[in-house]
Amino acid sequence: MTNTKALVGAAIIGQSGGPSAVINASAYGVIKTALEADCITNVYGAHHGIMGVLNDQLLVMEKEDPAELELLLHTPSSALGSCRYKIADPEVDDTDYKRILEIFKKYNVRYFFYNGGNDSMDTCNKISRYMAKVGYECRVFGVPKTIDNDLYGTDHCPGFASAAKYIATSIVEVSRDCHVYDKGMVTIVECMGRHAGWLTAAAKLACTVGDGPDLIYLPEVDFDMDKFLADVERIYKEKNSCLVAVSEGVHYADGSFVSEAKTSGTDGFGHAQLGGLAARLAEAVKARTGAKVRGIELSLLQRCAAHCASATDIQESFNSGKTAVEAAIAGETGKMVGFRCSRDNGYHCEYVLFDLDKVANFEQKVPVEWINAEGNDVTEDFVRYCAPLIQGETELKYENGLPRFARLKKIFA
Amino acid sequence: MTNTKALVGAAIIGQSGGPSAVINASAYGVIKTALEADCITNVYGAHHGIMGVLNDQLLVMEKEDPAELELLLHTPSSALGSCRYKIADPEVDDTDYKRILEIFKKYNVRYFFYNGGNDSMDTCNKISRYMAKVGYECRVFGVPKTIDNDLYGTDHCPGFASAAKYIATSIVEVSRDCHVYDKGMVTIVECMGRHAGWLTAAAKLACTVGDGPDLIYLPEVDFDMDKFLADVERIYKEKNSCLVAVSEGVHYADGSFVSEAKTSGTDGFGHAQLGGLAARLAEAVKARTGAKVRGIELSLLQRCAAHCASATDIQESFNSGKTAVEAAIAGETGKMVGFRCSRDNGYHCEYVLFDLDKVANFEQKVPVEWINAEGNDVTEDFVRYCAPLIQGETELKYENGLPRFARLKKIFA
Repeated sequence: MTNTKALVGAAIIGQSGGPSAVINASAYGVIKTALEADCITNVYGAHHGIMGVLNDQLLVMEKEDPAELELLLHTPSSALGSCRYKIADPEVDDTDYKRILEIFKKYNVRYFFYNGGNDSMDTCNKISRYMAKVGYECRVFGVPKTIDNDLYGTDHCPGFASAAKYIATSIVEVSRDCHVYDKGMVTIVECMGRHAGWLTAAAKLACTVGDGPDLIYLPEVDFDMDKFLADVERIYKEKNSCLVAVSEGVHYADGSFVSEAKTSGTDGFGHAQLGGLAARLAEAVKARTGAKVRGIELSLLQRCAAHCASATDIQESFNSGKTAVEAAIAGETGKMVGFRCSRDNGYHCEYVLFDLDKVANFEQKVPVEWINAEGNDVTEDFVRYCAPLIQGETELKYENGLPRFARLKKIFA
Repeated sequence: MTNTKALVGAAIIGQSGGPSAVINASAYGVIKTALEADCITNVYGAHHGIMGVLNDQLLVMEKEDPAELELLLHTPSSALGSCRYKIADPEVDDTDYKRILEIFKKYNVRYFFYNGGNDSMDTCNKISRYMAKVGYECRVFGVPKTIDNDLYGTDHCPGFASAAKYIATSIVEVSRDCHVYDKGMVTIVECMGRHAGWLTAAAKLACTVGDGPDLIYLPEVDFDMDKFLADVERIYKEKNSCLVAVSEGVHYADGSFVSEAKTSGTDGFGHAQLGGLAARLAEAVKARTGAKVRGIELSLLQRCAAHCASATDIQESFNSGKTAVEAAIAGETGKMVGFRCSRDNGYHCEYVLFDLDKVANFEQKVPVEWINAEGNDVTEDFVRYCAPLIQGETELKYENGLPRFARLKKIFA
């Protein structure tokens, strides 16, 4: 249904879901390209994602200082504000959609870009279908973002690589620290990833500089506590130290999360939200081996560490936003920008469009063939896949010895 | 007791205690200067600190690749290996000292440099006094290192500034993340510091770029849970979010650590070593306010984050080691290198010598006048003190998108 006429009207960019180190690089790709496009009359940032549309809280991008907007390339978290609002199915309840249409008409919005993960692509898809159904001409695009790297179809997701680089860097550093004493130690590092183990697998990249983890556990494999303890004990006895990377989402064969399992009724902190998996596993290791133990949870740090972002990721994230605007102007709609990559003669990334219908609500997991037979490591195929994504370092602007991130005026329309 | 004759003989450099991002920069200052000194015949690295001397495990620095040694400037953790061995009082048991003397004689060691914190300065001091007592001419120097910043006399300690820069950078980034949603959140970041709050106070530096914490709690002030909860609730109601930095060592008025206090008998993880203070406080806040909460423990990350080291700290750490060797050759002994700094017309750091007698086993805490009257923040005087120390960024060598740290051959004598 490509209409090659360049629609004349305003554009909205919104951000949704958990932030990343480069989500603003994508937003900047949209904002810059839209501000420069003749057919786009106004560029608005939705304050807190779709909530900003529903509440008529639109930020005027033309009123921002271009130099501050450019800092978005290196600024973590969602500069326009995020939300976790799950929009209803329009067949069940179209209240929100009527309101969105009202706002779109009020500002003559003809371009809508939504920057987020799985749920955001679903929101985007529903809006796209609704606008088509009611005959309101508006080009709707998903601009992907998720450190979880679980969007279907695309080679990888903007945001993943920077989190991966931070995790691998931290593992390299912690590896130096946890092997330093004459007395042994077992160190367990917990990475994000409820259902997909991409981020935890990224710890493996540290092996390319000789400082990798000894064991890696992903949610793609059922967790077996006895096997885990035996693995750790064997390595600890052999090397006098053991470094483990584990996904927050590891679960037993019955599907129950290890982080949520009751431990003989004495667990006063059994709230999954608080994490605590690393501390819990460390405790189990201590009980089994008597080793000195450390549990480290990377927590929010891994998704906002812009100071350790991948230059490749920043560039690809920016290009995702740019590509979305260019494709929308060219007449495309109902799509998400994705990557098709080749690694055979160096790394090449091509920007392609996926139907939102086909990406929304699917989860892409680490292929089982990239996990070793023991279920406690990932293979060289994973390293070959992931290593190109973390190449290049960010070039932050510093002020007072600290990152100087974008300061937006946030002027409402 | 200055003897200006340049002693001819070997030098030993040992590292002890918890690692830092720049402890190897100090060691490199010693190693490089010693390798270049005519009167120093051999340069040995003690493998795992004083244990390496006791076990006759000395690493030959002449056999290392100079380019790898230079990477020590940017390599975290103790490259020679560390230990936590507490040496006996020689008046009580001189077994270790006799053994050290035996090794010193075996290798004609006339220079001994010990790179560590409080306990290491104590070890250094005892060795210095013992050698003087038995009439073995050997120049003994402390080269300070501690992220805790608690060594007495010196303006600040090598290692502190890099940890401070990492903490402030992480706070800036987390601050962006935890304010991003339309729904509120309380985030609690736990920093190292059992008795002194320097590292936690460093979170305040984030305010200089507009992204600081709302509340700061140090061990220098007795912790009051009711006051803490009231502080958080007030700010959460006002701003819809609250970011707290807290020292692992905060304690109640009776001296008991908050991290170790029993919580109505249901705490199965009450091991202080595992930290968990942040999760514990987050849980208390959730019970009081109903807010979404996050507890983040910076753990080992803060002491090994070489990728975020302060260039000022690296330079000063290197110079500490260099100064120690130069002063030892010039005839000084029984000293620790320290800093005397002025901040009136720009920041200036002068390298001075302190008697080991006077620094060993004292702890320097955050001055009470730098803590606000409420006991929940630090003042601008602290910022003025600390800000110059975190200036400048490290220039890491990268390989495969990750830090390329020193790889020593570790060849034993």
